[in-house]
Amino acid sequence: MSTATSPAAGSVIGRPHPLIDGKARVTGALRYTADLPHAGVLHARFVTSPHPHARIDGIDATASEAMPGVVRVLTAADLPDLAPTSRARLLLARERVLFVGQPVALVVAESEAAAEDAAPAVAVSYTPLPAVATLEDAIADGAPLVWPEGMPGEDDEAAAHGLDAAGEQEGPQRSNLANPVSLRRGDPEAAFASAHAVVERSYRTSIVHQSYLEPHAVQVDPGLGADGVTVWSCTQAQFAVRKEVADVLGITESDVHVKPMPVGGGFGGKFMLYQPLVALAARAVGAPLRLVLTRQEELLAATPAPASRATLKVAADADGKLTAIAADFKFDSGCFPNSPHSAAAMTTGSLYQWPAFALTGAAVLTHKPSTGAYRAPGNPQLAFALESTLDELARELGIDPIELRLRNASRPGEPMANDAPWPNIGMHQVLERARQHPLWQDRGAAHAAGRGVGVAIGGWQGGIEGATAACTMQRDGTLHVHVGSVDLTGTTTSFAMIAADVFGIDPAQVRVVSADTEPGYYSGASGGSKILYTVGPAVAAAARDAREQALRIAANEFEADEEDLEIVDGAVQVKGVPSQALPLAEIAAKTMQFGSQYAPVKGNGRTAPGGRSPAFCAQLAEVEVDAETGALEVRRLAVVQDVGKAINPLTAGGQLMGGAMQGLGWALYEAVEYDPDGQLRTGSLMDYAIPNITQSAHDLEAVMVEVPSDHGPYGPRLGGGVGGGPPRPRPLRRARGRRAAGDRHCRRRGQRHPRRLRRAGDHPADDPGTDP
Amino acid sequence: MSTATSPAAGSVIGRPHPLIDGKARVTGALRYTADLPHAGVLHARFVTSPHPHARIDGIDATASEAMPGVVRVLTAADLPDLAPTSRARLLLARERVLFVGQPVALVVAESEAAAEDAAPAVAVSYTPLPAVATLEDAIADGAPLVWPEGMPGEDDEAAAHGLDAAGEQEGPQRSNLANPVSLRRGDPEAAFASAHAVVERSYRTSIVHQSYLEPHAVQVDPGLGADGVTVWSCTQAQFAVRKEVADVLGITESDVHVKPMPVGGGFGGKFMLYQPLVALAARAVGAPLRLVLTRQEELLAATPAPASRATLKVAADADGKLTAIAADFKFDSGCFPNSPHSAAAMTTGSLYQWPAFALTGAAVLTHKPSTGAYRAPGNPQLAFALESTLDELARELGIDPIELRLRNASRPGEPMANDAPWPNIGMHQVLERARQHPLWQDRGAAHAAGRGVGVAIGGWQGGIEGATAACTMQRDGTLHVHVGSVDLTGTTTSFAMIAADVFGIDPAQVRVVSADTEPGYYSGASGGSKILYTVGPAVAAAARDAREQALRIAANEFEADEEDLEIVDGAVQVKGVPSQALPLAEIAAKTMQFGSQYAPVKGNGRTAPGGRSPAFCAQLAEVEVDAETGALEVRRLAVVQDVGKAINPLTAGGQLMGGAMQGLGWALYEAVEYDPDGQLRTGSLMDYAIPNITQSAHDLEAVMVEVPSDHGPYGPRLGGGVGGGPPRPRPLRRARGRRAAGDRHCRRRGQRHPRRLRRAGDHPADDPGTDP
Repeated sequence: MSTATSPAAGSVIGRPHPLIDGKARVTGALRYTADLPHAGVLHARFVTSPHPHARIDGIDATASEAMPGVVRVLTAADLPDLAPTSRARLLLARERVLFVGQPVALVVAESEAAAEDAAPAVAVSYTPLPAVATLEDAIADGAPLVWPEGMPGEDDEAAAHGLDAAGEQEGPQRSNLANPVSLRRGDPEAAFASAHAVVERSYRTSIVHQSYLEPHAVQVDPGLGADGVTVWSCTQAQFAVRKEVADVLGITESDVHVKPMPVGGGFGGKFMLYQPLVALAARAVGAPLRLVLTRQEELLAATPAPASRATLKVAADADGKLTAIAADFKFDSGCFPNSPHSAAAMTTGSLYQWPAFALTGAAVLTHKPSTGAYRAPGNPQLAFALESTLDELARELGIDPIELRLRNASRPGEPMANDAPWPNIGMHQVLERARQHPLWQDRGAAHAAGRGVGVAIGGWQGGIEGATAACTMQRDGTLHVHVGSVDLTGTTTSFAMIAADVFGIDPAQVRVVSADTEPGYYSGASGGSKILYTVGPAVAAAARDAREQALRIAANEFEADEEDLEIVDGAVQVKGVPSQALPLAEIAAKTMQFGSQYAPVKGNGRTAPGGRSPAFCAQLAEVEVDAETGALEVRRLAVVQDVGKAINPLTAGGQLMGGAMQGLGWALYEAVEYDPDGQLRTGSLMDYAIPNITQSAHDLEAVMVEVPSDHGPYGPRLGGGVGGGPPRPRPLRRARGRRAAGDRHCRRRGQRHPRRLRRAGDHPADDPGTDP
Repeated sequence: MSTATSPAAGSVIGRPHPLIDGKARVTGALRYTADLPHAGVLHARFVTSPHPHARIDGIDATASEAMPGVVRVLTAADLPDLAPTSRARLLLARERVLFVGQPVALVVAESEAAAEDAAPAVAVSYTPLPAVATLEDAIADGAPLVWPEGMPGEDDEAAAHGLDAAGEQEGPQRSNLANPVSLRRGDPEAAFASAHAVVERSYRTSIVHQSYLEPHAVQVDPGLGADGVTVWSCTQAQFAVRKEVADVLGITESDVHVKPMPVGGGFGGKFMLYQPLVALAARAVGAPLRLVLTRQEELLAATPAPASRATLKVAADADGKLTAIAADFKFDSGCFPNSPHSAAAMTTGSLYQWPAFALTGAAVLTHKPSTGAYRAPGNPQLAFALESTLDELARELGIDPIELRLRNASRPGEPMANDAPWPNIGMHQVLERARQHPLWQDRGAAHAAGRGVGVAIGGWQGGIEGATAACTMQRDGTLHVHVGSVDLTGTTTSFAMIAADVFGIDPAQVRVVSADTEPGYYSGASGGSKILYTVGPAVAAAARDAREQALRIAANEFEADEEDLEIVDGAVQVKGVPSQALPLAEIAAKTMQFGSQYAPVKGNGRTAPGGRSPAFCAQLAEVEVDAETGALEVRRLAVVQDVGKAINPLTAGGQLMGGAMQGLGWALYEAVEYDPDGQLRTGSLMDYAIPNITQSAHDLEAVMVEVPSDHGPYGPRLGGGVGGGPPRPRPLRRARGRRAAGDRHCRRRGQRHPRRLRRAGDHPADDPGTDP
């Protein structure tokens, strides 16, 4: 081990620390799911639907199965006939296909190439059926229904929604509208009638793909002998995968072991998808099996973020106090009704203090892949709509946009849309900090130069869940931190810092071990931006417990009082007496040997959720629009965010910048596009435009405001939801010297899809799809 | 899951429970190390020394490496030059070989057959050197020394001995005698001079092999990318293997993961042997590598139990009170000085209350494989010697042998040889119970029929070590018990019973998860017969903690007091109100979901060693000797043992019977034999005679006495050391109908080696090697 040095008090938390696994990630040394040894493992490849909606009349795999290396072609007939209550349970299409790209058959072969070659040889006969590809078509009268006989398990789906329930659920629909919600406070109609100013606008956003660098990948050992099923997969939610795989296989969770692999980007899109199918297929062929999606399959058949349509009407009095809002949010949720419309309605009614509101929302079913989570589901869409409308209102009222927000933004204790009080939040601090930022202060000069400066706020409640963790001392002098959470955003490094700070050693002496589903470290899914403040407290508690145990052993060895001991340079010593020191490695060794008199040093942490730690940001952007071409350039972008406490400013800042870049891509470049027949137009990264560094803000800055939350060690808030995450397919490079090929082709894509988030009120002529 | 039923109070502990993994073991469904998938894994085979002692002049692997499928032939030159401080660090012979069968080169090939074929093609040139094959030759004047330049790390070896140190260590020897010990109390010489009766005898025992059914097996993944080294192996001591592999590879323990596989019999012989070598070899070839020993390699190059030579002189007064003992124990420890002579001396001075003793012992180095642990190391050898001598003394005194023992056997609080007081032990209860046994009561009839009835006692202190465990509630309604110990003797079943009893569910609802070295469940090696009483308390504490957590959640849900709740039929209910019940599966689900308000149910147990729980047995045997042929038949064998508390009488009884069978084999059949040139005569199970059921006692009975120890839940004592264990190569079968081929060939072997434990005093003419 490296020479242990002890951190000075306060020298760990809040100081930039490189990602512990950063080098392994950037050098390619980290082993992802697709890198697992696969000697003796079979390979699977999809046969996918070319139709958005069709009846399957027959599947003939004879020719395919005769091809070299092909082991078997599986169809729905080879799998259990499950009620298709979720995308993961659609497995392979049975009787009907519901979207282009839906898996219809699975070719299992001895090599990936053999499976790839044999997939087109599977002959599937279809009778095309009427389909709806767009949200507007889907809610038109007489539109073909996605689930004409009723959505299987519709209620279960709603219950599993996982976000704050908002308003009442109405009964099942006989249309493509699903899970409508309605929230109401006061008398918005009267408020609108008596308002000093009213602004009403409509907005639309596109489907966007999470565009993680690593595609979905899963490898399954169906179990040999008495062993259970083992699933290796890049998942944000190993325990959810365990449950679902057990359920579809009809075995108990105890017989399924899920080994969560490093995740090469998730952003909400890697909870669960094809793990149950591959597990069933591995069982059917009786051999280990792997499936790694192609980028095209990712764009065809994953779970992107939904397109949205929003209409908002806001009112204020002459003093700039908001008096009412009426808003409706519809999300194109694809073939299943998973949609963040209730979260959007809830947040809309909560961000500001509205005396009256009428908020509605619904999922809209279409013949497209069902959608998933992506960065604070529903919030980017509502923030775009709400903040754009408030800017218009500020102009109408002649009030500074930040001032308007400060007069109305919710403070701790004020009611949310569901009348529960806001916990300790830093929205006002963030707005005040944004107001002081040079980008805002100097906006007069920008205006004079023909550039626009805008502001918007956004936020996310964050998830809650309990967690367990442990810290064990090892004979090599390290402290092992055991957690059950998957690292998406650098939590491994943050946990090492927390444990080091609490225990009193250098973070280099800490090793974070992310457990699989076996050893009993349940931490919940790495979603909802919650891991740092839900698992972090368990890590801190475990480290504190371990420290006390180590001191107790040293006290016994020294015949000293624990109070008189300290941990310095990797050893317990009598305070101020370095000559009387017992290295931590020796303490561990004393507990880990035959005849030992001490219990092994193992600190345990187990925490119930303390409450949410919502986080807010204000983003400032200075943009320049070419008046002739309409080409838009973001010159400066500043993210001012309340991070509670930046445990590791390096990764926290990176999260904020990454999130802002994803927002910029969502706003200006990215769109999963379908033609009116339901065919995907953006089936590759040549067509789906992820912004390159040259298309990012020329100057991107993250400003961290620290308003400690009431929970967790040090009070960190979420960083992921409104921040960033791991790499996306084209890692950002500062443009130096020659430009990479990716730059050029991203620029081209940029030209095709210049702006995806359009302010309907600003540019009605640009947007024929805008609602009136 | 099966329908949960709740155990009635007291209905779990002490009731026979089949082994949880019994079916998987007997149907071959359990996956042992050799059964691991090995597609893409290379195979290793030894080239072994034909000489007991020789200089290696050269190794030419050219022809071998040219053979089909051979990847590489490794020799010591390819491995680090470590000081050979232990057998595991001998790796491949460097310059000298020290025993027949010592690995000299390792052939690595793509298949086991290719490696097997290529091993004889490795040309090794030797210059034979003088060797000593027997204990007697080794201590003769002028005997060739095993370590002429001094034993590397002699002191470390002695320190690592792991048993109670007894007496003073003298300086390093310039002979083959190593680590001599000497213990003395009072004035034994004066006691002998004034004694009413004195008996002096000498004894010898053979080398015996632990003869586990499964040979040593190890598979190593040298690590790909950022991963560490992974070792799968049937080991009793995964944490020791982790440390040693890390040390020899020169990496930190944190980078070595040891996955302990099911152990197909260990009996002390499967701590660590070839794991470091295979890890180094896998690194050298840069690919996963496996080694599975053949039975011949097991007999040639494992670590059998040492042969012994003992001389004892005991004295008593006319009342049958023992007054003095002088004893010397020498063990043939092979090429390293690991030997249980200090334990033998210590136990000899402790079992009975001797006013005076002079006890000595030493290891004797020979050119043979070094020896290892096997069933209470040193104790079978000393018990044979001491108990035989006491029987002679009883005859001399005209006192009933059990009565003589009862008058002198140590009681709780009386001093051991090191003057420390005996803890609570049940030696007297065991002797009293044996005296009442029909086999003893009816011995007059046996004598009349020409049969002999004998008695002997034996015991074992047991190891001590702390342990950690956890119990987690799962959504499938099971309680998972997490431990870091390897199951050798049915501890998995016992832990399930303990957790079920404490938590209040059926053992069928409990799943014991034996963790590898990663997740921080340190429990120490499964050796020293200690796991049930060292890890068991941690399991009980964890189950109690988990139960309290579950009750607290239910209390919150019911708005009831925890005191008013009970766990019945897998649900928490208000006492006596089955209609108000919350299934445990639902409680678990409430803690394992997004937005959960509860911490996951995870009970932790962490226990320091409470002290030893020594166990004693008395064995009664009725034997018949054919006066003409000398053929000996054991008609009845009864084991009366203090088990403290039989958690699971089925496995506890099985342990006692298995141990007795192994003792019978040791006494009558088994011997690893070398010829005077140091060549192994017993290189297969055709030559090494393990008794079959027809050679066992006609009637074998285990009687469990329960004198609860002061430690652990329920007060169990060790069961392994003086009991039995998992299957040995020829599982015992009651002879019914036709006899299996194994029976016949065991009978033949029995004739060749009729008795291996010989009472020198009884049959001096039979045993030319007996000391005077």
